[in-house]
Amino acid sequence: MSGIKVSRRGALALAGAGVAGVAGVAAGAGALVRGAVDASAGQQPDHPSGAVPFYGEHQAGITTPAQDRLHFVAFDVVTKDRARLVDLLSEWSAAAARMTAGADAGVIGAVSGAPEAPPDDTGEALGLPPAGLTLTVGFGPTLFRDADGRDRFGIADRRPAALVELPRFPGDALRPEISGGDLCVQACANDPQVAVHAIRNLARIGMGVVTVRWSQLGFGRTSSTSRDQATPRNLFGFKDGTANLKAEDAELLRQQLWVQPGDGAAWLEGGSYLVTRKIRMTIETWDRTSLAEQEAVVGRTKGTGAPLGASGEFDPIDLAATGPDGTPRIPRDSHVRLAHPDSNSGARLLRRGYNFVDGSDGLGRLDAGLFFMAYQRDPRRQFVPIQTQLARNDAMNEYLRHVSSGLFACPPGVRDAGDFWGRTLFT
Amino acid sequence: MSGIKVSRRGALALAGAGVAGVAGVAAGAGALVRGAVDASAGQQPDHPSGAVPFYGEHQAGITTPAQDRLHFVAFDVVTKDRARLVDLLSEWSAAAARMTAGADAGVIGAVSGAPEAPPDDTGEALGLPPAGLTLTVGFGPTLFRDADGRDRFGIADRRPAALVELPRFPGDALRPEISGGDLCVQACANDPQVAVHAIRNLARIGMGVVTVRWSQLGFGRTSSTSRDQATPRNLFGFKDGTANLKAEDAELLRQQLWVQPGDGAAWLEGGSYLVTRKIRMTIETWDRTSLAEQEAVVGRTKGTGAPLGASGEFDPIDLAATGPDGTPRIPRDSHVRLAHPDSNSGARLLRRGYNFVDGSDGLGRLDAGLFFMAYQRDPRRQFVPIQTQLARNDAMNEYLRHVSSGLFACPPGVRDAGDFWGRTLFT
Repeated sequence: MSGIKVSRRGALALAGAGVAGVAGVAAGAGALVRGAVDASAGQQPDHPSGAVPFYGEHQAGITTPAQDRLHFVAFDVVTKDRARLVDLLSEWSAAAARMTAGADAGVIGAVSGAPEAPPDDTGEALGLPPAGLTLTVGFGPTLFRDADGRDRFGIADRRPAALVELPRFPGDALRPEISGGDLCVQACANDPQVAVHAIRNLARIGMGVVTVRWSQLGFGRTSSTSRDQATPRNLFGFKDGTANLKAEDAELLRQQLWVQPGDGAAWLEGGSYLVTRKIRMTIETWDRTSLAEQEAVVGRTKGTGAPLGASGEFDPIDLAATGPDGTPRIPRDSHVRLAHPDSNSGARLLRRGYNFVDGSDGLGRLDAGLFFMAYQRDPRRQFVPIQTQLARNDAMNEYLRHVSSGLFACPPGVRDAGDFWGRTLFT
Repeated sequence: MSGIKVSRRGALALAGAGVAGVAGVAAGAGALVRGAVDASAGQQPDHPSGAVPFYGEHQAGITTPAQDRLHFVAFDVVTKDRARLVDLLSEWSAAAARMTAGADAGVIGAVSGAPEAPPDDTGEALGLPPAGLTLTVGFGPTLFRDADGRDRFGIADRRPAALVELPRFPGDALRPEISGGDLCVQACANDPQVAVHAIRNLARIGMGVVTVRWSQLGFGRTSSTSRDQATPRNLFGFKDGTANLKAEDAELLRQQLWVQPGDGAAWLEGGSYLVTRKIRMTIETWDRTSLAEQEAVVGRTKGTGAPLGASGEFDPIDLAATGPDGTPRIPRDSHVRLAHPDSNSGARLLRRGYNFVDGSDGLGRLDAGLFFMAYQRDPRRQFVPIQTQLARNDAMNEYLRHVSSGLFACPPGVRDAGDFWGRTLFT
C-alpha cells in the first residue's frame, strides 16, 4: 500500500511546477534529487555527506557511526484506527528510504503540473547531500495501552515485559509534556538541516494520524559508536563515552544491545530498547568549580580523559587503586566508578547522546545540557539499575537535573522495500 | 589591563593539572591549542575549519562568508561600575582573539598546578579546529540609557540617533524577555560546539558584570554574504537571500552597510547596526498550502528560485512584467516585490539569518522559523521602512509571527591586541 501512496505523492511533485509555468522541467527535476550532485563527484558512502543504507537486519542509527547532529521527536497517535496507523508506518518507511538515500520525501519524476496541491516535499533540503542521515523508530509503552488502560490498537498483549514504565529516580524533575510519547523518531545526520527536514516531512506525512508531542535538537554527539571515531566532549568539557559499547564489539552487542530469541518478544528480535533523558546541566555552577573538584566528580582528568591515576584515555579503569593517603584514586562517588560495568553486574549501554543548548532559562543562565540516549537489550537489567545507583550516589548530581524521560522499543530493521517499520508487531 | 587579567587566567591553566598529578604536562598543553592539529596538516585559512582573522577595520562576522551555525546571545549588564564594564570588554576582546584563532579562552602555557582554581576554559571545544569562528559585538539602546532614563555609564550623550527604539509593527507578537539587551554577541562558526563554547566562555568571563538575557541557536544559514556561496534555503523550502548585499559590493557596502563619517556618531564609524528578529514560521500550515500559493506568496519558484516569470535564480526581478491576463507576474503582495529595493527607495540590507527549531510548542507543532539578522548603515532608512511595508502588506504574514526583536550598534573592528571592543565609545 505504501507504493500507491508514494506514487500519489510523486504525481504532485514539486519540480518545475512553477506558477508561471516557465521554469524548466528538466532542470528542476534534476535539482530535486539531493544525492545527484555528489554521485557525479564519485563520493564515497563513508564520507560524512554520503548515504547510510536504510534497509537491513537492524535499524540504522544505533551502531552506525554516530553523526554530529540530532533531531529527535516523540509523537502521539491521534487516530483510533489501527489501519491508518499501519498505513502511516508503511508510508513513513518508504519516505525514510528515500530521504536517507538523499532524495526527497515523495517520489520525484513525472510532473503533473498540479500547482493547486501542496508540494510533495517541504524543500528546505533541496541541493543538500544525504549527510549520513539515519532515521530510527521506537514504540512507547502508551502505544500498547494508553493511560486509561485501553488496548488502542489491539497490540496490548504484545507489549514486551521489558518495556516498563521507568521508575521515579531520586532527584528526577521530569516535565510530562516533554516526556514519553507513543512513537519516536531519531533523526541523526551530519547536517542539521537534513535531520530537521526528515522529521518535518515525517510529521507532514503523518498529519491527522500523529501529532508532535515534543522534539529536541542536539548539536554535538557525546559518544562514539565506532572505534574509528574520536571521543567527543560533553558540556562539562570532559571526554564522554570512552568506554561506550561500540559497533566492533560483536559479542557484547549480542549480549547487551540486541533483543534475542527467548527474550520474550519475538516481534522485537533484532531490535533494541532506547532510553532518552534530557539532562539539564547547571553549567554556570560547574564553571565556577575547581578543576580538582571537576575531575574528582568525573573520575577522569579533563585534559586527556585518562582515568584518575592513569595516563591515557583508554587505560583500564583501576577501581581498586589507592593514593598515598590510602583513599581510592577514583573517588567512591565519582561518575566513572558508579557507571562502570564492574559496579553494575557487568551491565553496559550503547550511548548515543547529544549536547543541547535551548536558549536561556530566564534566570540569566544558558538552558544547556545533555540529551542522553542509550540503547540496550533490557532496561530492567541495564539502564534502571545503573541510573538507580547514579541517582543515589553520583557526585555529579549536584550539577544535573533530569527534566525529560522516555523509553521506546525499537523494532528490527526494515528488510526491503516490501517491509515497513513495525511489520513484525502489527502483522 | 586586559593583559594582566589574561595572564592570571593563564596561570590557572587547565593543562596537565590533573588531580592525581600524573597526566603528562607536555601532552596536555599540546592538546589544548585547538588549532595545532590543523596547522600541522597545512590547512588553508579559507577551509571551513580554518580561522577568520579577528583584528581589522570592521568586525568579522558581518561581510565575512556566512558560516553554517549560530549562537547568538543578548546580555544585560548587572554592574553599575563603568570601569568593570570596560575591563570586561577588554578581557572579552582578548579571549575572542584567542578563541577565533582556535585557542582557548585563557592563555595556555605555564602550568602552575592550581587545582583549587576553576579551569581557565570550559573545555568542550578542546581538539576542535577554529571552524571559522567569528565573534561580533553590539550595544543596545539600554546600554546608553536604561528604561528608567538613567545614564548608567556616562555614555548617554554618545547614543547615536539611529539607535532608535524600533516601532511596533503591525502583527508584532514580541516577548520582552527574549527581546532587546544591553549587549549582544553573535557567534558564528561551521561547528556549533565551537560557537556554543565561545558564548559560554564569554558568559563565564563576564560573571558578575553581565548576565544572559536571552540566547538563540541557529542551525542553517539562510543568506549568502559572498558571491562564492550558494544560496541556501529557509524553512519555507525557498532559496533565501538571492539579492542580499554581498562582500564584493564595495560601493554598496559603503552606501548601505558601514556607518560613515558625518552620520552623527564618530565612535561608530566603520561599524554597523544589527537588527535581530525571531520569526516563528507556522510551517505546518505552510506545508498544507498549494505550491501555487507558496510561489505567489514568495514571488519566486520553489525549484530554481527564479523570480516568477523568469527562468534563472539570478535573473533580474521585473516588477513591471504582467501575465496573459494583465496581472503582475510577481503579485503585488508577494514578499520579493515588497522587500525589493525598488519598492523601498533603494534601501537594502545585509542579511545574515539562520533557521531555528526550538523543539515543539506544546500544541503538536514544531517551534521553528527564521532568526533574522540584518546589518545596515541606518535602520531608520533601511529596516524600519522595509519592515513597515512588509508588516502591512506581505502575503507571507499569514505564516509568520515576530516574537523577538533587537537593535544593536556594532562598533568598528578591534585593530590589534592593544585595542578592544567599544574603545571608541568608552575612551
